[in-house]
Amino acid sequence: MTDENYMNLALTLAKKGIGFVNPNPMVGAIIVKEGKIIGRGWHEIYGGWHAERNALSNCRESPNGATMYVTLEPCCHYGKTPPCTDAIIQNGIKKVVIGCLDPNSLMSGKGAAILREAGIDVVIGILEDKCMELNEVFFHYIQTKTPYVVMKYAMTMDGKIATTNGTSKWITGIKARENVHKSRNRYTSIMIGVGTVIADNPTLTCRMDGGRNPIRIICDTNLNTPLESTIVTTAKEVKTIIATACDNREKQNLYHAQGCEIININLMDNHIDLNHLMLQLGKIGIDSIFLEGGSTLNFSALQSNIVNKIQIYIAPKLFGGSQSKTPVSGIGIQEVSNCFLLMNQTITWFGEDILIEGDVAYTCLPE
Amino acid sequence: MTDENYMNLALTLAKKGIGFVNPNPMVGAIIVKEGKIIGRGWHEIYGGWHAERNALSNCRESPNGATMYVTLEPCCHYGKTPPCTDAIIQNGIKKVVIGCLDPNSLMSGKGAAILREAGIDVVIGILEDKCMELNEVFFHYIQTKTPYVVMKYAMTMDGKIATTNGTSKWITGIKARENVHKSRNRYTSIMIGVGTVIADNPTLTCRMDGGRNPIRIICDTNLNTPLESTIVTTAKEVKTIIATACDNREKQNLYHAQGCEIININLMDNHIDLNHLMLQLGKIGIDSIFLEGGSTLNFSALQSNIVNKIQIYIAPKLFGGSQSKTPVSGIGIQEVSNCFLLMNQTITWFGEDILIEGDVAYTCLPE
Repeated sequence: MTDENYMNLALTLAKKGIGFVNPNPMVGAIIVKEGKIIGRGWHEIYGGWHAERNALSNCRESPNGATMYVTLEPCCHYGKTPPCTDAIIQNGIKKVVIGCLDPNSLMSGKGAAILREAGIDVVIGILEDKCMELNEVFFHYIQTKTPYVVMKYAMTMDGKIATTNGTSKWITGIKARENVHKSRNRYTSIMIGVGTVIADNPTLTCRMDGGRNPIRIICDTNLNTPLESTIVTTAKEVKTIIATACDNREKQNLYHAQGCEIININLMDNHIDLNHLMLQLGKIGIDSIFLEGGSTLNFSALQSNIVNKIQIYIAPKLFGGSQSKTPVSGIGIQEVSNCFLLMNQTITWFGEDILIEGDVAYTCLPE
Repeated sequence: MTDENYMNLALTLAKKGIGFVNPNPMVGAIIVKEGKIIGRGWHEIYGGWHAERNALSNCRESPNGATMYVTLEPCCHYGKTPPCTDAIIQNGIKKVVIGCLDPNSLMSGKGAAILREAGIDVVIGILEDKCMELNEVFFHYIQTKTPYVVMKYAMTMDGKIATTNGTSKWITGIKARENVHKSRNRYTSIMIGVGTVIADNPTLTCRMDGGRNPIRIICDTNLNTPLESTIVTTAKEVKTIIATACDNREKQNLYHAQGCEIININLMDNHIDLNHLMLQLGKIGIDSIFLEGGSTLNFSALQSNIVNKIQIYIAPKLFGGSQSKTPVSGIGIQEVSNCFLLMNQTITWFGEDILIEGDVAYTCLPE
């Protein structure tokens, strides 16, 4: 077993925290002594022990003299739990192999330095890219204090999200739709526009076994979300936030009474300022948003430069129709050179459908 | 070397005929004696010798007692050249390994039977699927007497073929565009709608080294193609056909004078009947059409059930725009269950772009 093999195992453990640890990072740790794995652990739940302490307490024999593999630099500060560096030193760990450093510039490298001062051999950067990618949400949130935004849509091979009469059930098959529910479990919140609430009256819950529901966020500039919509009537069961520029307290109270929270957002070009919304959501600990359209909100989000990643499901179907809806509308761009670019594309098959994922690169500043 | 290895080599040879042999099939042949390849040949040009005779005449030693690998069943009739079965028998070939049988139901199996009657050992069906796929155009044309239609378009990740102001240069990168020119070389003709002529004034030539220009076909119901358009002014250099329902002889003569051919097609629902057009094109020996849009013609073609294959280039760009054009427009379908389906999808990367290819399956009959 190489360092990379052990780190891969630690990464696999880390992923068990998907959906449970936000806004903390997912972290996995493995303790190896004389070529044998004697302890495993991961950060299981927000507020709970970190991966390092879990791995130490799970050891089948004394970790004294052992090597620890951990996907993220051990913390050296008191948060919800005491510093992991203390536990590593106290347990006599001889060597620590770290996937990537803490992204917080005030902390980065400090944990490693403390371990070295204690005479521990420290290696940094094993499978660094994979370790950073696993926590792209955490890295983004720590560095910007705003949520990591993943825009998702499902379209046909001819770029339609509905037929001419507005029907969209179903464009993709069951495997693709199941994967969407995994994403709803992974990201802290889900965001849609009021237009989608009115058109589709969705529930936006996570229908994955053992999954948890994301916080629902509705962008509703003029506070037009129907009070009888499923999202509003279930707001006492699933946390629901309405972001609006309408400060009519009386109107807002109707939603409060149903259990909705309301965030007041500045108006910009006749719709809520999405950059202001991102700052507000970041302040209340929302590290990530799964953006499920519709097409007008999708364009506004791209134009506001808030989208980090795009997930495009493409089904092997064609609808045609000059009036059929497409995934991104709004005013659009004029010049090809001003388009939004997708970088680091990957393609994954889900049955007959494909998922194209990529990071957004902005070629132009928002107007 | 197994039979499959030799047949793969014969397939490679066959592909050298791409663009030169239509409406004949591409065929490759290899002659093997005592484990050594002693002759290779392929059908090089329409009207020229078939692969079998080319391989025989290229033999470095006597083919007497040798085995021939050939991708398609040898012909047993007089066409532009005498029967290949005669040449195989006369040259003392001992065994013939055939990829797939002749698709013409009147001929299928006859060549093989004649060889067997002559005492030759015949094996059929080695790499059969690959051999049939190579000649999907030929198989379709022989069986239906109408051209094999490949619809191609290039779109963004949000399903647009142009920005809001109509700009579309360039959606895809150079590698994808080079591959489009390979297709223009491969298929006998290229078809567009008059709307695209007016909007883009294209040339539709093949800009591939050593390539040949496809016959240009314009679907122009009311004969509105501008007389000053590049396609019309270059019609004496590159064969150009205008398919129209306008039988005004005086108007037609203006195009004739420029070198265009005109085919009179029946009117159906205010546009030319594409099924009638396919029959007419089949009659004049056009075995294949590369359909390069625009979106209205694309929908009509799908609705008329004439499309066999679709090639979709997708660039990692997003344009947005509720008014931006999409690849397939028209009236569209109402119910998801009536959509056009893509089967046997494959994905190929061309630089940053992807090409999705698939066969069309029709879930509904044209209205």
